[in-house]
Amino acid sequence: MKAEIIAVGTEILLGQIVNTNAQYLSEGLAQLGIDVYFQTVVGDNKQRIYDVLKTAHQRADLIICCGGLGPTQDDLTKDIFADFVGKPMYVHEPSMEKMVQLFQQRGIEMTDNNIKQAHIVPDCEPLKNDTGLAVGLALTHNQHHYILLPGPPRELKPMFERYAVPWLKSLIGEKLPLYSKYLKFAGIGESILEDRLKDLMEQQKDPSIAPYAKEGEVLIRLTTKAESEQKAYEKMQSVEQEIMNRVGKYLYASENISFEQALISKLESLGLSLSVAESCTGGKLSELLTSVPGSSLVYKGGIICYSNQLKNKVLHVPMEVLEGEGAPGAISSESAALLAENLNQLTDTDWSISITGVAGPTISEGKPVGLIYIGIKQKGRPAEVKKIQLPGSREMVQLRSAKYALYQLWKKIREI
Amino acid sequence: MKAEIIAVGTEILLGQIVNTNAQYLSEGLAQLGIDVYFQTVVGDNKQRIYDVLKTAHQRADLIICCGGLGPTQDDLTKDIFADFVGKPMYVHEPSMEKMVQLFQQRGIEMTDNNIKQAHIVPDCEPLKNDTGLAVGLALTHNQHHYILLPGPPRELKPMFERYAVPWLKSLIGEKLPLYSKYLKFAGIGESILEDRLKDLMEQQKDPSIAPYAKEGEVLIRLTTKAESEQKAYEKMQSVEQEIMNRVGKYLYASENISFEQALISKLESLGLSLSVAESCTGGKLSELLTSVPGSSLVYKGGIICYSNQLKNKVLHVPMEVLEGEGAPGAISSESAALLAENLNQLTDTDWSISITGVAGPTISEGKPVGLIYIGIKQKGRPAEVKKIQLPGSREMVQLRSAKYALYQLWKKIREI
Repeated sequence: MKAEIIAVGTEILLGQIVNTNAQYLSEGLAQLGIDVYFQTVVGDNKQRIYDVLKTAHQRADLIICCGGLGPTQDDLTKDIFADFVGKPMYVHEPSMEKMVQLFQQRGIEMTDNNIKQAHIVPDCEPLKNDTGLAVGLALTHNQHHYILLPGPPRELKPMFERYAVPWLKSLIGEKLPLYSKYLKFAGIGESILEDRLKDLMEQQKDPSIAPYAKEGEVLIRLTTKAESEQKAYEKMQSVEQEIMNRVGKYLYASENISFEQALISKLESLGLSLSVAESCTGGKLSELLTSVPGSSLVYKGGIICYSNQLKNKVLHVPMEVLEGEGAPGAISSESAALLAENLNQLTDTDWSISITGVAGPTISEGKPVGLIYIGIKQKGRPAEVKKIQLPGSREMVQLRSAKYALYQLWKKIREI
Repeated sequence: MKAEIIAVGTEILLGQIVNTNAQYLSEGLAQLGIDVYFQTVVGDNKQRIYDVLKTAHQRADLIICCGGLGPTQDDLTKDIFADFVGKPMYVHEPSMEKMVQLFQQRGIEMTDNNIKQAHIVPDCEPLKNDTGLAVGLALTHNQHHYILLPGPPRELKPMFERYAVPWLKSLIGEKLPLYSKYLKFAGIGESILEDRLKDLMEQQKDPSIAPYAKEGEVLIRLTTKAESEQKAYEKMQSVEQEIMNRVGKYLYASENISFEQALISKLESLGLSLSVAESCTGGKLSELLTSVPGSSLVYKGGIICYSNQLKNKVLHVPMEVLEGEGAPGAISSESAALLAENLNQLTDTDWSISITGVAGPTISEGKPVGLIYIGIKQKGRPAEVKKIQLPGSREMVQLRSAKYALYQLWKKIREI
C-alpha cells in the first residue's frame, strides 16, 4: 500500500511551526509495514487543498490528512474532503453531545462555528478525539483509503494510536511487520564506507541496506519483513556478515546507540574511569559524555581550562610553557601532554583526555583555525599527543575535535 | 512569486528525521516576501523525484530542492534535475579543487563517488558550500527558478543565507524590500507572552508580528515593506512601543542574537569575568557560553565536578557535606553555595555560577529528577542559592537548568 501524508496549515508554510505530525505518522506507518511515498503540506486554501487531494489520489491509495478540523473559518479540510469524495457532511451525535457538555462544564457559550467539529461523512468510521473536540474519520471509497486527523499533536497522536492504527491493521490484515537491524560505525566516512559496500547496495533487495551519516558516525540500517524478529534476523545474517567482513573493524555497536553511549558502556564494562581537560572545546566533550544516562559511573569530571590562568592554576602547566617569547604556547603538543598528565594526577582516573587548539573564528597564538592537539593519558603511562587540522566552523571544530578525541580513546580500549 | 519546497530523502518518509529544512526555508522565504504554496517530501527514487519536479513545475515558479546532493548512490537530486531541465551535468572546478584539498588535508583517500558533489549544470549560478563538500546551484530556466541545496542543516543554512538569498533578492528586485526587527525575550514563556500580545497579534496588519519560541528564549519578529530601513523602523515604532510597554522587562536584545551572546556582551562591556562549576549539567553551561566567539574575554573556565571526588578534591567541599548519614548531600543548597564560593576563590573571577541537581532519568540521593540548586557568587559577597524543580527529559533538565542559571546572572547584572 502506498501512502501519502497531507498536512494542512498555512502556519507550516510560513515556517512558524515544524511539521512534526508528518514525522510521527511516517514512523507509525513504517511500523505497520506501510510505505509512505510522499509528504505534502498545503495552506488553508480551498482550491489548493482540493488539488492536493487530487494529486494524492493519483499516486497513493492511502491518504492521511492532518489539520484543519477545528472551528475557525481557516479550518476547511472536512468540507473540502466531503466535496472531494462526493458525500455530504452531517453531525456525528456522540461528538456533538460531548462538545455541548464540555462547553457547559466550562461555562462557555458554544458558538455555532463549533458544530462543524462534530461533522463526519456517511459510511465512514468516526475516530474519537479523547483529548480534544474535533472528531476524525476513516473512510474507504473507490479503492482509496482516507484518514482525517486533527492538527494539534496532543490530539492527533492519541487518535492515531487508539483508533486509526486498529483501522489500518484491519485494512492490511495479516501483512508482515518490518524489522530493522542497526550497524553503527565510527572512524570511517560515509562515502568511503559506501564505496566499500557499493556492490552490496546495488544488488540489495531483501534486506534493504540504508546508510545514514551523522557527524562522526555512520549508521547502516538493514530492514526486512518477516513473521518474527528471529526470522527477520536470519534473513539478514548473510548480508550482515558480508558487511562485517569488509568494514567490521569500524563497527562500534550493533544497535542504534550513539558513539558516546558505546564508549561509556565499554569503559563501564571494563571498570575504567575517565576525566577530561578541555580548552578549545569549552565543555563540548564533557557534554557529549554526560548526555549519556549513567555516565557518572565512568566519567568523573573535567576541567574547562579555557584561560591560561586556569591551565596554570588548576592543572599546573607552567606559565613559561603557556606564554612568552619562544614558549610552545597553550596550543601545543607540550601543553596537551602536561594537561593530560596533571589532570590524571588530580583526578586519579584510569584515563584522561586533554584538548587544546583553535576553534576559531579567528587564529590564536598565530596558529590556524582548526589546529587541535589531543592528549590521551593512561594511568601509569606517559601521555600521547595527536595533532590534527580540522575543517569547518567554530561549532564544527569543537564538535569534531571532541568526537575525534573520544575515537582515539575508543581505539585504545576496544581491544582490551 | 509562488514557491514550492521539495525535500528529498527516504529517511524523512520513514519518520527517522523531522523535515526542519522545510520550516527553515519557509521562514526565510516569508521574510523575503515570497509565498510558499507547497512543501513536498519525496524519497530517494528517480521516477518519483522526477514526477514531483513535474508537479511543482505546474503549480510553482520557484522550486527549492534540498537533500540528495551527497556522494552516495542514494543522492540522486542533481542527476534527475539535470535530466529535468535538459542540461548535462559537468564538474565545477573550484568545488572539485576544494574537495581534493580537503581530502588531502584529512589524509583520507577521495573515492570517485565524491566527484558528483562538484557537479553543476550550464548557465546556473553555483552556490558555494562553506561548511561541506556538495556545491549547490541556482538556475532560471523557462520562466521557472530553481535552487538546489544540500540536506544537512549545517550546510543548507549557510548556503541559503549567504548565496541563495542574494540570488533571490536579485530576482524579486523591483519589489519593496522587506525589513525585520527582532525583539528577544528571556524569562517569559511563549504562551504567556502571546497571551499578553493577543489583541495586537489579532489586529496585526503592517508590520506583521510573528513570535518564535526556542528553549528559554522567545523571539518576536516585526516585518514590514518600506523604501528604507529608516522608514521601516518608523512604521514599526508604535507597535514596538506597545509591545515594550507590556513585556519590555523581559527583553534582553533588540537584535536576533542568542541569550548567551547577549550575556557575554553585557559582561564584556562591564569588564566582568565568569567561571562555572557544573555537576548535573555536565558541561552544558560551559558549552553554551563557549559557543559564543570571543567568550574567552569573559568566561575563564570551569570545573565539571561530576563526581563527589572532584567536588571535594578540586573545589574543597567537605566530604561530611557531600556524603554520609544526615549530610546535606551533593544535591543541596549547602553544596551549591560551597561550590560557588570555592570556585570563585580558585578562579578569582568577578562572578561564579554553580549547578548541582538531578538530571535524571533516575533519582539521586533519594531526590527527585529535575531538582536543581544554582549558586550565584559575586566576588566579595556571599553566594546566593536558588532551588528549582524543572520538568522534562534528562537532556531538557540539563539545558533548562543551564539556561536558568544564566538568566539568574543576567537579572543581577542587567541593571549595572
